Amino acid sequence: MTPGRNRRQQDQQLPEEADVMTTGHTVGPVGDDMTSVTVVGVDFGTLSARAVVVRADDGAELGTGVAEYASGAIERALPIAGAGVLPPDWALQDPYDWRSALGSAVRAALADAGVAPESVVGIGTDFTACTFLPTLADGTPLCEVPDLRERPHAWPKLWKHHAAQDQADRITDLAHAGDESWIARYGGRISSEWQFAKALQVLEEDPAVYRRSARWIEAADWIIWQLTGNETRNACTAGYKGIYQDGQYPSREYLAALNPGFADFAETRLAVAELSALGSRAGSLTAAGAALTGLPEGIAVATGNVDAHVTAPAARAIDPGQMLAIMGTSTCHVMNGSVLNDVPGICGVVDGGIIAGLYGYEAGQSAVGDIFAWWIGQGLPDDYTADAAGKGQNLHDYLAQRTRGRAPGYHGLVALDWMGGNRSILVDHHLSGVIVGLTLATPPEDVYQALLESTAYGTRMIVEAFEAGGLPVTEFVVAGGLKRNHALMQIYADVLRRPVSVASSDQAPAVGSAIHAAVAAGVHADVAAAAKAMGRKEHALYLPDAGRADAYDVLFGEYRTLHDYFAGRGAGSNDVLHRLRRLRNAGGGAS
Amino acid sequence: MTPGRNRRQQDQQLPEEADVMTTGHTVGPVGDDMTSVTVVGVDFGTLSARAVVVRADDGAELGTGVAEYASGAIERALPIAGAGVLPPDWALQDPYDWRSALGSAVRAALADAGVAPESVVGIGTDFTACTFLPTLADGTPLCEVPDLRERPHAWPKLWKHHAAQDQADRITDLAHAGDESWIARYGGRISSEWQFAKALQVLEEDPAVYRRSARWIEAADWIIWQLTGNETRNACTAGYKGIYQDGQYPSREYLAALNPGFADFAETRLAVAELSALGSRAGSLTAAGAALTGLPEGIAVATGNVDAHVTAPAARAIDPGQMLAIMGTSTCHVMNGSVLNDVPGICGVVDGGIIAGLYGYEAGQSAVGDIFAWWIGQGLPDDYTADAAGKGQNLHDYLAQRTRGRAPGYHGLVALDWMGGNRSILVDHHLSGVIVGLTLATPPEDVYQALLESTAYGTRMIVEAFEAGGLPVTEFVVAGGLKRNHALMQIYADVLRRPVSVASSDQAPAVGSAIHAAVAAGVHADVAAAAKAMGRKEHALYLPDAGRADAYDVLFGEYRTLHDYFAGRGAGSNDVLHRLRRLRNAGGGAS
Repeated sequence: MTPGRNRRQQDQQLPEEADVMTTGHTVGPVGDDMTSVTVVGVDFGTLSARAVVVRADDGAELGTGVAEYASGAIERALPIAGAGVLPPDWALQDPYDWRSALGSAVRAALADAGVAPESVVGIGTDFTACTFLPTLADGTPLCEVPDLRERPHAWPKLWKHHAAQDQADRITDLAHAGDESWIARYGGRISSEWQFAKALQVLEEDPAVYRRSARWIEAADWIIWQLTGNETRNACTAGYKGIYQDGQYPSREYLAALNPGFADFAETRLAVAELSALGSRAGSLTAAGAALTGLPEGIAVATGNVDAHVTAPAARAIDPGQMLAIMGTSTCHVMNGSVLNDVPGICGVVDGGIIAGLYGYEAGQSAVGDIFAWWIGQGLPDDYTADAAGKGQNLHDYLAQRTRGRAPGYHGLVALDWMGGNRSILVDHHLSGVIVGLTLATPPEDVYQALLESTAYGTRMIVEAFEAGGLPVTEFVVAGGLKRNHALMQIYADVLRRPVSVASSDQAPAVGSAIHAAVAAGVHADVAAAAKAMGRKEHALYLPDAGRADAYDVLFGEYRTLHDYFAGRGAGSNDVLHRLRRLRNAGGGAS
Repeated sequence: MTPGRNRRQQDQQLPEEADVMTTGHTVGPVGDDMTSVTVVGVDFGTLSARAVVVRADDGAELGTGVAEYASGAIERALPIAGAGVLPPDWALQDPYDWRSALGSAVRAALADAGVAPESVVGIGTDFTACTFLPTLADGTPLCEVPDLRERPHAWPKLWKHHAAQDQADRITDLAHAGDESWIARYGGRISSEWQFAKALQVLEEDPAVYRRSARWIEAADWIIWQLTGNETRNACTAGYKGIYQDGQYPSREYLAALNPGFADFAETRLAVAELSALGSRAGSLTAAGAALTGLPEGIAVATGNVDAHVTAPAARAIDPGQMLAIMGTSTCHVMNGSVLNDVPGICGVVDGGIIAGLYGYEAGQSAVGDIFAWWIGQGLPDDYTADAAGKGQNLHDYLAQRTRGRAPGYHGLVALDWMGGNRSILVDHHLSGVIVGLTLATPPEDVYQALLESTAYGTRMIVEAFEAGGLPVTEFVVAGGLKRNHALMQIYADVLRRPVSVASSDQAPAVGSAIHAAVAAGVHADVAAAAKAMGRKEHALYLPDAGRADAYDVLFGEYRTLHDYFAGRGAGSNDVLHRLRRLRNAGGGAS
C-alpha cells in the first residue's frame, strides 16, 4: 500500500468528493503578509504528484497544484513504439514523469498560493515505496540509457510490481533457515514489493541489465539526487524496504546463498551513502533543480521520505503510542515507540523510520477502501442506482444511509476482510475473504455494512497486537481519504472502544513533506517542534458509544474465532483458503 | 417448498422462458382421432392453476390453460374492504380463487387442445402443501361464513405461512420429550408449515374461530370435496403434513399436553374419513363440478395429491432408488423405497406417500433458484446488464456464459447454500449462507458459479444421506424449471458423479395429475402402469466428466468440512450462524 495510491483511488468513492485536479484552499490574508516564509511539500503518488505551499510558521495551506504522470502506472506495455505486452503482475514507472510532474505541480501550487517563489525557503518530498530503480553511477536511470530503453527490467519498478514473488519467498525462507536476526523485524516475511526481491528478479531474469546497474535506489532518494546533485539514502526506506537493521544490510554470505551474483548487491549498489535522518537537510537546490521547479536556487532540500510515514507529523501523531492509520484503498498504520520490541505480524520496525530518535513501527491492511469498492463494483440493483442519482449521492454514501441508525449485528453478518490478503497480523497474501450469515433477505447495503465493520475488526486485531507486544496505543488518528466517511469513522470508534482523532488536512502527506522542509530549512528545531507548530488534527472527533461498543465486542469475538479458524494454522483451524488459492492459481482442477 | 411456487418464480429467471400465460403445445394429429380418450390434470400452484389435457393412452400433451388467482398469496392484508395489515410471516389464500382458476384453466386447456369435453374420462389435481383450512361440516370454508370473514385465522393458511414457529417448536420438543415414535420419520423436527402447527396457532390466537371449525382439511382434499361432494383425505398430505404414521395420528394425550383444547383435534377434525390411496377414485364429478369445469358429469375424479409427489410418475421416477428432484426456487427430492428406514435429516417418510405400496421418502433444499435470483438481485455491473441486453440473454444465461469452459475451482470459492436455511440434512432453518475465498479479483459471475455449485454439493449431501440410510440412489431425475439450465445440470452430473436424467414435460406436475386421473378412470391398471405409458424423461441426458468429477470431489470435501463446522453441532464446530441469527432477529445488539 502507498497512500498516494489510496488517495487517488478512493477519491472516486468518497463522500463530498473534491476534484483532485482542483487547486486548493487559500487560508488567511496572504496578500497582507507577502514576507511570510513558506515551504513546499511534494507528494509523489502512484498516478500523480501533488505540491502544497505551506506557511512555515503555522502550517497554513496556501496553495495546491497537482500534475498527473503521462504514463501513469505502466502495467501493460512500455510507453515506447513497438513495445510488447508485459508479463502479469508487472508495474513500472517512467522517471521522466516524476520530474515533469514535479515541475508542473510546484509551479501550479505557487500560482495558486499567490506567493512569490522567493518566499520559499525549503522543499520536502515523499514518494510511494518501495518504488525502486537501477541507475548509472551518476544517477541516470538505466531506462534512459539508449541501448537499454527497450528492456523492461531497466525501468523503475513501481511499489505494486508483484512479479518477484518467487524471489521474495526464497529471501524469506533462507532468512529463517539461517536464523537471520532481521527477519523478526518484518513480521517474519519479506514482501515481493521490497528492494531485494525486485533487484534479485532483475539479476535472474535479465542479468545484462543488472550488470549495467551501478546503483539501485528508491525513487524517494532518486528525486533528491535530481534536486541536490547529492546521492542520499533515507533511513525510512532503507529500513522498511531495504532490510537495513542494526547498522547493516544483509550479509554478503546470505546474499551469495540467494544467488552468487547477488553477493555484492548491498555493498556496491545500496551502501554507497550514509543513511540520512528524516527531516535532515539532504542538500541545497541546484541550478538545474531551480530551473525545473521555479524555486530559488540554494534553498534547503529535505531528505526523502515515504508517503505514509511523512504523514505522521502533519497529523500530530508522532509521540510513542499515537497510532496513525492512513486509510484509503488499503490502510497503513505507523506508530512510534520508545522501545524496540518484536511485535509478531507487523510489517516492520525501523530505528528512526518515522522520526529520528524513536523506533518507527509499521503495520497494514492489504485492502480497505478497495473492499468497499469491490462490493459496489459487483453492481447494485437498478432502483438503488436510480435513487442515489436522484438524491445526488455517491453509492457509498447511499448504501451507508440505508443502514443508518441500525444496531450492530442487525444484519446477522460477519466478514473477514481478506479480499486482498492479510498484511497484518497474519502476513499472508494468499488468504482470501469470507462472508458469513447471508440470507435471501440480505440486501446489498447489509453486506456493505458488514464489510465496513470487518475492516474495523481487522484494525482492532492490529491494535491489540501492538498492545500485546508492549506498545500501548494511546490515541488512534486517521488520515487519508476514508477519514471523510463519517459512518466508517464511527464504526471504528465503536469497534476500537476508543476515540478516533482525524488529521485536519486533506493532503496530509504533502503537508508532512512541507513540515520536513521547514525542519531542513531550520525554521523549526526538529520534526517534533515543527509538527507542533504546523500539524493539525481534530482530537477525538468520534467518540465510542458504550452500548454499541458492547455489541461490537460480541461481534468482534465472532470475527476473532473465524479469523483464527480460517488462518489455517494450528489445531482446529482450516487451511481451506490456501487450498482454494492454489487451485485457483492453477486455473482449477480439470478443464 | 412447493413446486407450484417454484415453477412460477423461476420462470422469471430461466433460460428460454415460456410465457406462463401462453397456452401449450399441440402434439400429434389430434383432429384425426377425435375419439381418443383424454384426461385432465390440474396443478394448483402458489399464484395460479395450470390445467393440461393429456391423451390417456400415451400421455401426449394436447393443450394447456393457465389462470392466475385474483388475490394470489395474501401476505399483507385480507382482500376485503377495511382490512388491517397482517402480522409478519403470514400467508393466506382465498378458496374462491381456487375454484375460479380451476374453471378457467380447464376451459382454456380444452380450447387449446381442440378436443371435445366428452373425450375426457377423468380429472386429477395436485396442490401446494401444506395449504390448510378450517371448514364447516359441509366443507364451507370458515372464511366464507359471513361473521368470520374479517377474521384472518378463518382463512386458509398457505404453505408458506411461517407464523406458527412457536407452536412448531413446542410440537417438536414435546415429541422428543415423550419419545413419540413418529418424530424420527420427520428428520426429528416438525415444520411450522405443517398442519398441527397451523391449527394450534388458530386455537391459541383466535379460539373463537377454532371452535367454529368442524373440519381442518388440506386444500388438496378440499378441492376434491368441491368436485365430488365427498370428503376424502389423501395418504400423501396426511403422512407428510399431518403426522399420520402407522395407521394413526398423534395421540389424544400428546395433543392435550400441547394444549388441553387441542386434545380432540385429530379425532374430530382430521380423522373423519379413511385415507385414500394416491391414484384411487375419490368419486365422480358432480353436476356442480361439471358446471364449474365444463367437463362431463360423472367422470372419474382422482384422489388429491401434492405437486412434488404427483410429478414422480410423469418423470418416470417411481421405482425404488429413482430420486426425483423438482428444482425451482427450492428443491424437493422424492424417492420411493421398498423398505422403511430411518434416514436422519429427511423431511419425512410415508407409506404410500408417492405411490401406493411403497414407502415414499421426501427431502429438500430450502433455497436453490432463490439463491441464484438473490445473487442477481444484489445487482450486476452496468456493462454486464448492457451486454446481456445487447445479446438478448437473460442474466442467468449471461453469467453462466461468462464462466463457460472454466475448470472446477478456477474461481477459488466455496459457498454453503444455506441462504434459506437448510431443510435436509440439517433440518435447521436458522442456518444462513457462507461464501469463502473472495478476492478483489472475484467478479460477479464467479460468485454465481460458486452458488450453482453449492446447491449441487447440498444435493450430494442428501444423496449420500439416503445411501448411508440403506436406500441406494440408482437414478437421479430432474423436473422443474431449473432442468432447462444446462450449465447447472452439467454441474450436478459432475458433482454427483452420476448421469442426470430430465423429465420431458415442462409441466410435469399437471401431467402427473393427469396420470392419476387416467388411473382413477380405469384407463391404466395402476400408477406404475400409467407412468410407463404416459410418463416421459430423457434418460441420462447429462453425463459426468471424470476429470471434472474428480476436481469436484476435492471441492465437495471442502464443502463438507465447512458444512459440519458451520452446522454448529459437536466438538470443533462453530455455532456462529445461530448466534448471528438470534442477534439479527433481536434487531441487533444496541441501537
